[in-house]
Amino acid sequence: MKILLVNDDGINAEGIKSVAKELGKRGHEIYVVAPDGERSGVAHCIIYTRPLKFFEINNFPYAKKAYSFGGCPADCVKFGVHHLFDFNFDLIVSGINHGPNLGTDVFYSGTCAAALEGKVMGISSIAISCTSWENINFLPAAEFAADFIEKTDFSTQITYNINVPNLEKKDIKGVKFTPLGIRKYSDHYEMRLIDEKEEAYLLIGDPIDVEDNLPDCDVEWSKKGYITITPLNMDLTDYKALEKLR
Amino acid sequence: MKILLVNDDGINAEGIKSVAKELGKRGHEIYVVAPDGERSGVAHCIIYTRPLKFFEINNFPYAKKAYSFGGCPADCVKFGVHHLFDFNFDLIVSGINHGPNLGTDVFYSGTCAAALEGKVMGISSIAISCTSWENINFLPAAEFAADFIEKTDFSTQITYNINVPNLEKKDIKGVKFTPLGIRKYSDHYEMRLIDEKEEAYLLIGDPIDVEDNLPDCDVEWSKKGYITITPLNMDLTDYKALEKLR
Repeated sequence: MKILLVNDDGINAEGIKSVAKELGKRGHEIYVVAPDGERSGVAHCIIYTRPLKFFEINNFPYAKKAYSFGGCPADCVKFGVHHLFDFNFDLIVSGINHGPNLGTDVFYSGTCAAALEGKVMGISSIAISCTSWENINFLPAAEFAADFIEKTDFSTQITYNINVPNLEKKDIKGVKFTPLGIRKYSDHYEMRLIDEKEEAYLLIGDPIDVEDNLPDCDVEWSKKGYITITPLNMDLTDYKALEKLR
Repeated sequence: MKILLVNDDGINAEGIKSVAKELGKRGHEIYVVAPDGERSGVAHCIIYTRPLKFFEINNFPYAKKAYSFGGCPADCVKFGVHHLFDFNFDLIVSGINHGPNLGTDVFYSGTCAAALEGKVMGISSIAISCTSWENINFLPAAEFAADFIEKTDFSTQITYNINVPNLEKKDIKGVKFTPLGIRKYSDHYEMRLIDEKEEAYLLIGDPIDVEDNLPDCDVEWSKKGYITITPLNMDLTDYKALEKLR
């Protein structure tokens, strides 16, 4: 398959290299367009207020072509599809994200937004994340992504959000197709002195456990050690509320 | 009501001032936290990688307090609720956006993301947009927002996305509660020389007509001159696809 590979941790992140390697080894044609630095939490941000620079990267492992780009993850997808390459991609792979994208996280995630940008364009896509921020073993997630791509029919547009626990392969309990759950965050702001006089405020916001999740959701299955897979759509209409209003 | 007012066009935009005036005149307590510059297209971006500055704005019309903040619209909501004010808001109002937020636009919109951040926090919210980018007459949208808020029960969390045509009040055809439709964009990149040697690429991406919209969606009703209102949820699970996969 011709695969456009993007991420939100930037072109130098280990996660994107590990999945490039695994997909490349299995014979896929890998084309990389990734941000020139970290873009975590940028969601579906797109930049149209200023021009953006790109650079070819010559030594990206297992890639036919690789570019860094000055935009956000969704910009990378737009620039790859509309400008850099003159052929059609079979699939967009976004990741491997350093950290989970479970439940409500999906709304803040640049990784998931890049996959959803595929939906806007009619190109099948997967977002893949490893559920730890530190000491990540990317190999199980990279292998799972490659296995999943081999087994899955992407000929009709579909977008998957996949989270792989940061465990040895033998310790992963299994795979669950699940709806998204809910995440809440311990959001607060801490003051930082940015020079002798000026204060600024830093958001500190780790996910916290919520009690109102259904047991059958990605957040809960992930906690139990399962790989979770959720097909995503892009319709935010609250149909139940709409029915009542009408 | 105690209302947190935010936007994505920035603290100096005309849209936010026009709705502050209308809501203030009707006796609501208005507290403004808005970006210090334009943040269109930033979606649900949040900034936690660097501290952000805020400044009190002393002459903001009809506001009890007003602040500019260095973050994105969703950051403004977080900072207002978690840091600046020590009481609970009854409602978050985001807008009035300079330009439409119809159908797929919602995914790219900072205005809508600020309203959705209300959903994350359990605070009712509305995003309100005027469907033209230029020569905007904000009064009908501001009046409609104020009328709608008076008539609507926000005691259980609900988020509405509202688009008001840029017409004289007498020429607006009516109000429709509708699902979101689909938007596509004429995305392409144009080269810009940013100094004597360096090239960069600017995204040009206006919405274009799509033929596969159902007639009963916000995009189509808006075209016909109606105010559209869509209740939003935050579940991106594609339940039909999930059913098949299981």
